[in-house]
Amino acid sequence: MSTPTADTRARRDRLRALLVAQDLDALLVTDLLNIRYLTGFTGSNAALLVAADPAGDLFCTDGRYETQSAAEVPDLPLVLDRASDLALAGKAQGRTGFEAAHVSVLALERLEAAATGARLSGTADLVEGLRAVKDQGEIELLRQACAVADRAFAELIAAGGIGAGRTEREVGLDLDQRMRLLGAREPSFETIVAAGPNSAIPHHRPTGAVLATGDLVKFDFGAEVGGYHSDMTRTVVLGPPADWQREIYDLVAAAQQAGCDALVPGITGGEVDAVSRDVITAAGYGERFAHGLGHGIGLEIHEAPGLGRGAAAIIDADMCVTVEPGVYLPGRGGVRIEDSGVVRNGAPGSRYEVLTLTSKELLEL
Amino acid sequence: MSTPTADTRARRDRLRALLVAQDLDALLVTDLLNIRYLTGFTGSNAALLVAADPAGDLFCTDGRYETQSAAEVPDLPLVLDRASDLALAGKAQGRTGFEAAHVSVLALERLEAAATGARLSGTADLVEGLRAVKDQGEIELLRQACAVADRAFAELIAAGGIGAGRTEREVGLDLDQRMRLLGAREPSFETIVAAGPNSAIPHHRPTGAVLATGDLVKFDFGAEVGGYHSDMTRTVVLGPPADWQREIYDLVAAAQQAGCDALVPGITGGEVDAVSRDVITAAGYGERFAHGLGHGIGLEIHEAPGLGRGAAAIIDADMCVTVEPGVYLPGRGGVRIEDSGVVRNGAPGSRYEVLTLTSKELLEL
Repeated sequence: MSTPTADTRARRDRLRALLVAQDLDALLVTDLLNIRYLTGFTGSNAALLVAADPAGDLFCTDGRYETQSAAEVPDLPLVLDRASDLALAGKAQGRTGFEAAHVSVLALERLEAAATGARLSGTADLVEGLRAVKDQGEIELLRQACAVADRAFAELIAAGGIGAGRTEREVGLDLDQRMRLLGAREPSFETIVAAGPNSAIPHHRPTGAVLATGDLVKFDFGAEVGGYHSDMTRTVVLGPPADWQREIYDLVAAAQQAGCDALVPGITGGEVDAVSRDVITAAGYGERFAHGLGHGIGLEIHEAPGLGRGAAAIIDADMCVTVEPGVYLPGRGGVRIEDSGVVRNGAPGSRYEVLTLTSKELLEL
Repeated sequence: MSTPTADTRARRDRLRALLVAQDLDALLVTDLLNIRYLTGFTGSNAALLVAADPAGDLFCTDGRYETQSAAEVPDLPLVLDRASDLALAGKAQGRTGFEAAHVSVLALERLEAAATGARLSGTADLVEGLRAVKDQGEIELLRQACAVADRAFAELIAAGGIGAGRTEREVGLDLDQRMRLLGAREPSFETIVAAGPNSAIPHHRPTGAVLATGDLVKFDFGAEVGGYHSDMTRTVVLGPPADWQREIYDLVAAAQQAGCDALVPGITGGEVDAVSRDVITAAGYGERFAHGLGHGIGLEIHEAPGLGRGAAAIIDADMCVTVEPGVYLPGRGGVRIEDSGVVRNGAPGSRYEVLTLTSKELLEL
């Protein structure tokens, strides 16, 4: 049976295999998200030593987290020290990797001085690479995070929260609060509510602009649950859509479905992007889709693999990614449709399991 | 007249004086908060070169921020490049500092390769040191951030939002939303609402615990306005206070006032801490006040100077700091009272100007 400590133990064992392949005796993990992934610890100060020999694993935090770490990390020997990275550097033996993308130049000077029994060696993306493929516990949290976003959006609509006269900011705060009350720790990122011409700005921040009849209104938002981030975009229209609105909506919906259908193990991120982008380009709107198709989600809202032009990352089963093409007509309006989902090794046509279940039909409000 | 660009220009000039003193031809600034301080830029990708000769200053961001940077940084030459740090490293000349606490080991390798015309040299805390002393524009933003927190708390009380039967989490979400609706971009940090025995946990996170008559309820919260963070703690009691509650409340209030009164230019952070702590120790509760007295606030919720046991930082006029002693009785309850304010060169007794104006009398609800 999958339990939190069984999951984190399995993750450390996968990391161990990478250490052995790189001839490392241990890895000193200092990035807090990587530590959370490998241990379950959610506090703000920690370091972790993962050794080629599991008996050498050590976890360190400070006295504030003594109770919390006993609950979250019951399966690793605990060192209590405020200078957690230095404390574990002092206990490291042999050739010990550090996370070169996360350790500052100043911090490395201090680590070198503390690591009297080890030779430190920079590494890159060891844990991040593992994190790209999710285990069942992670997928379940992402499913919950997507469900919270779905429910909050449905509640917002049912309460009449999207309508002419409200400001983008009011609507955004309303949606965010509904996610919190439904169990999100916080929104996954700063929610986008973009009405009318603002919907043509891909990453618009909500303003005092008032929603008006005839507007396209674009929502890009997500919920964080258990540390995992969902991400969804839906575009609605206030009143019956104009022909141009219907045209770009249907086009983006077709491109989005093509991207979902293309997501099979073995394809590259760049190839998936191209499949979806080609639909938009063939309709003459290629220049109006200026961003990448999608990205991995998990402990971060943007993580590996990338799905964009030329992205070399090979898609694997159990990766969780977004698919989010858009068409933006400056000064008029734009449409983006985005799902979060899991790449599956399933029957043809069912290989990408969408976790964001809100309808993708154009909703007229 | 103070304008945003005059303020940021003056900050760069103060930095320039430090560069000359350290025999640096320029500083490559890559920390986004330091860049915001020196330029006003609020986007998520930027680098800044501040040169000993002002004509050498350069600002870099990417195409997403072309319009925004024109509005926020109209006074500096703009380079557009996604790899902003590398682009400016390539334009640096002579002995160029980098921020050793913010540049990762991996990033430095790339900077070294890009900086073909410069010799890179690590620096520490140059901009952070300047940021400890606020200018009038910053103090005004902190005043607004404190006012938002004051008003939100007053509204919460007036609406009957603090009462038996609600959960800590409900009350916290209510308070947070009021701050947002009053103009906070976000709460300054995860709001603490701690009821009954939970109030004895210094940094409790809100739970489903239900507020009950007789509880001490501790609120630690703040608002972010224009990038600046307020920080305030108030403790209320539900119903008439028990003798022990009144006793520790009056003690903490006296210690807090002593700390405020001691905040004069020239004193050290450690000396201020001692003045306030001595009041609590003299009453026999010294072991129940296990954290530091306070900290600087500004673009970060915790920044220089520190006010804690043995802190060597010398307090100067126009530093903005918190004063927040507490007494915590495990299993029973605790009291903390905290203000944010500005150290002033004023008449005796008026040297610390409190910006959080909510009453510090014990409020019975």
